[in-house]
Amino acid sequence: MSNKPNIPKGTRDFSPIEMVRRNYIFDTIKKIFKKYGFQQIETPAMENLETLVGTGGEESDKLIFKILNSGDYLAKADGKQLETRNSKLLTSSIAEKALHYDLTVPFARYVVQNQNDITFPFRRFQIQPVWRADKPQKGRYREFYQCDVDIIGSDSLLNEVDLIKIIDDVFTELFQGKLKYTISINNRKILQGIVESVGEQDKFEQIVVIIDKFDKIGRIGIVKELINIGLNENVAEILIQLCNIKAYDEALDKINFNENLKVASEQLEYLSNKISGFHNGEKGVEELEFVFEKLTQLGLKKANVIFDPTLARGLGYYTGTIIEVKVDNFPSICGGGRYDDLTGKFGLKNVSGVGISFGADRIYDVLLDNKLYPEFKGDSTQVLFTNQSAADEERFLPMLFALRDKGINAELYPEQVKWQKQLVFAEKKRIKFIVSTNENVDLFVKDMNSTEKKPFSSIEELITFLKK
Amino acid sequence: MSNKPNIPKGTRDFSPIEMVRRNYIFDTIKKIFKKYGFQQIETPAMENLETLVGTGGEESDKLIFKILNSGDYLAKADGKQLETRNSKLLTSSIAEKALHYDLTVPFARYVVQNQNDITFPFRRFQIQPVWRADKPQKGRYREFYQCDVDIIGSDSLLNEVDLIKIIDDVFTELFQGKLKYTISINNRKILQGIVESVGEQDKFEQIVVIIDKFDKIGRIGIVKELINIGLNENVAEILIQLCNIKAYDEALDKINFNENLKVASEQLEYLSNKISGFHNGEKGVEELEFVFEKLTQLGLKKANVIFDPTLARGLGYYTGTIIEVKVDNFPSICGGGRYDDLTGKFGLKNVSGVGISFGADRIYDVLLDNKLYPEFKGDSTQVLFTNQSAADEERFLPMLFALRDKGINAELYPEQVKWQKQLVFAEKKRIKFIVSTNENVDLFVKDMNSTEKKPFSSIEELITFLKK
Repeated sequence: MSNKPNIPKGTRDFSPIEMVRRNYIFDTIKKIFKKYGFQQIETPAMENLETLVGTGGEESDKLIFKILNSGDYLAKADGKQLETRNSKLLTSSIAEKALHYDLTVPFARYVVQNQNDITFPFRRFQIQPVWRADKPQKGRYREFYQCDVDIIGSDSLLNEVDLIKIIDDVFTELFQGKLKYTISINNRKILQGIVESVGEQDKFEQIVVIIDKFDKIGRIGIVKELINIGLNENVAEILIQLCNIKAYDEALDKINFNENLKVASEQLEYLSNKISGFHNGEKGVEELEFVFEKLTQLGLKKANVIFDPTLARGLGYYTGTIIEVKVDNFPSICGGGRYDDLTGKFGLKNVSGVGISFGADRIYDVLLDNKLYPEFKGDSTQVLFTNQSAADEERFLPMLFALRDKGINAELYPEQVKWQKQLVFAEKKRIKFIVSTNENVDLFVKDMNSTEKKPFSSIEELITFLKK
Repeated sequence: MSNKPNIPKGTRDFSPIEMVRRNYIFDTIKKIFKKYGFQQIETPAMENLETLVGTGGEESDKLIFKILNSGDYLAKADGKQLETRNSKLLTSSIAEKALHYDLTVPFARYVVQNQNDITFPFRRFQIQPVWRADKPQKGRYREFYQCDVDIIGSDSLLNEVDLIKIIDDVFTELFQGKLKYTISINNRKILQGIVESVGEQDKFEQIVVIIDKFDKIGRIGIVKELINIGLNENVAEILIQLCNIKAYDEALDKINFNENLKVASEQLEYLSNKISGFHNGEKGVEELEFVFEKLTQLGLKKANVIFDPTLARGLGYYTGTIIEVKVDNFPSICGGGRYDDLTGKFGLKNVSGVGISFGADRIYDVLLDNKLYPEFKGDSTQVLFTNQSAADEERFLPMLFALRDKGINAELYPEQVKWQKQLVFAEKKRIKFIVSTNENVDLFVKDMNSTEKKPFSSIEELITFLKK
């Protein structure tokens, strides 16, 4: 191989500084998950292909990276599909395994497989890469990390309250109050109620898909598409009116964020009158009222909460609460909701769960774009011992290990090269202090950000100086 | 899917307690890597297939999991190989990507690709899963974690010293002085010197493969195989004698571990006399002498160091120092060495590197078998608020969040279910304290390990109690 090597499109390497930033995000999120009593699990990157297919529909199945069987895989290949060169139908006979494309399906599989060892309600979190054969584009990768947090085996709405408070905690810490963000909340049952109230429940799924596009195609686009699927214009307009509680949004900017919840609750009340008498709708309103009430009682630190009856997040598996978090100029950075039968596919019925997923890669970009990373100190080398001679090595080696044993990150330049080269090394690696000696074997420590060289005579003196 | 779901053979799920233990290992290793000035990177799980093949020989290539191209992969398939059903030759036309089978080859690719942004000597560590289509068996998985630490761009032997000190630090901390372990050290050039000294350098590679099997087939087996490849019996015996410095090992048990290095140095000196005059051998001895001398000067905390001239760790890419760490009854838990031209394949010549890899999964098993895990406290829920009524929820919710804001991991049982069920939940999840109330709304906190219920009247009082 003589060409310059590269990596598959849609994948990335992470350099040291990128890793420090990513770990900062993961550590913040993990710490908060644990505070809420969640426990970490991991599942293999590879699942059996049949575990993954058929969960998110045919479009999702296309996104799954399949792993070629080992050895003589063609020996077991389907002869007919091979002859007619039918890629799609051949796959299952030459690829039994695949890379997971989210963490929710493997979690459902895990819960069913380990149901006898799990203490329900089970609060788990999972931080792992996922793989999707998606078209790579800005902010969309083929290999990216998800941070999932779910409660399974409880239909209490207190779980929803916990998840929204987690979002508030995570972004309060990561954004340090310097960036506005919005948690949109809805309930799938409210959407049902709205559609039922105009007598179009038969077209529920089509209508949801259209309404979900509100942000993209606007009011006029929505009406047009609703008419296209056979609604009469009047009904379409009523539907829009019921959903278009967004009009309230504009007022939000002028409202203290603590009043968000009051506004959201008022919007909910307004809508509840319009859809009263429709069982699903009433149930959805009641559920969301409970959540808003508890959040109002507890208070939020920095989150702007919006009730958005158009929020559907695809058809997917959500059956109750739907949650989505946004900041300006970015796609959703966190989202999720309640699903009543996720484990059904694997033979365990009627287990309700609710969860959200933080998109670590997008959060990474948001923090970078908005200069929200703190200055990282302890993570890289703090002290470099310079190396001009074998005598330096002899002298500095015991000091080097004395610092390390005190928990101070330190290194000795491993070769006796020019002073300038060692200085550039220290600068590029952002090392804060360098230790050197002169021909009289006097010892010095120098802060790379100043010109002053401080003499010292013992390792204890050096440690005292560094610890300041 | 109605059968109970499962996962591909050779892969594993990690439950919460397993994750806590694994994270303990990773955190310990990471902390020590950082103390030595190493910086973390990550590379994608997927690499281009051509990056991976041909690095470790044909046997290695078979172990690579290939990823089927997306979409209509048969359209681009090699027609001839398809017709003759030649799995091996068809692969490259239907699978362009693959999962990395180690972290060393991706690291070499990373260094070449990013050489202009890297400050050399580059000290990097990398902790990620790797995948191998190996026959699964006890302790051998198809998906497992490696923790690699390498210095590239410096041929100073001080780097070897650092790596051996890292091993000493890691296992001193993980084994807490309760488990004996051995670091075997060799140098590929010494092996060359030994073989040259008996005039059989043409058979060097064959001889190394045979000698490497010392532990498995013993002295008699070695002699037999050496004769089989054409050595005369006399030469075979001399070779064995030179290598069999292992005989000294038996004495080791009686030696204070601080004398290890002295014994190893004496063995090295003994051998150096036998192979003096052979350039490679002399160079190897000189290198190892430097390493032993520095280690003697600095001292080791708990490591037993052995000089083992039979240690080869396969033919691989090692060109200098070779290192392997063992505990009784387990295969190698850490190993590595120096390679002089790892990046050559990718077009960057003459860059020397040295590195070791910790096998996290084997270390996990060693700690478990020897009961060496500490009791983990902060990681799971510390306090459970019990839930008997809506009034409990109202009362406990603000307390719950007050604890969390103080950094105490806490949860409220999300449903109003039987007391007994909540108690079992707390026990199974090993929650230390439960908070409850009675009909007079008196508040109590109870240590799950005692029978005493302590009354409290305010959240401040509760926090003070818990922080004790």
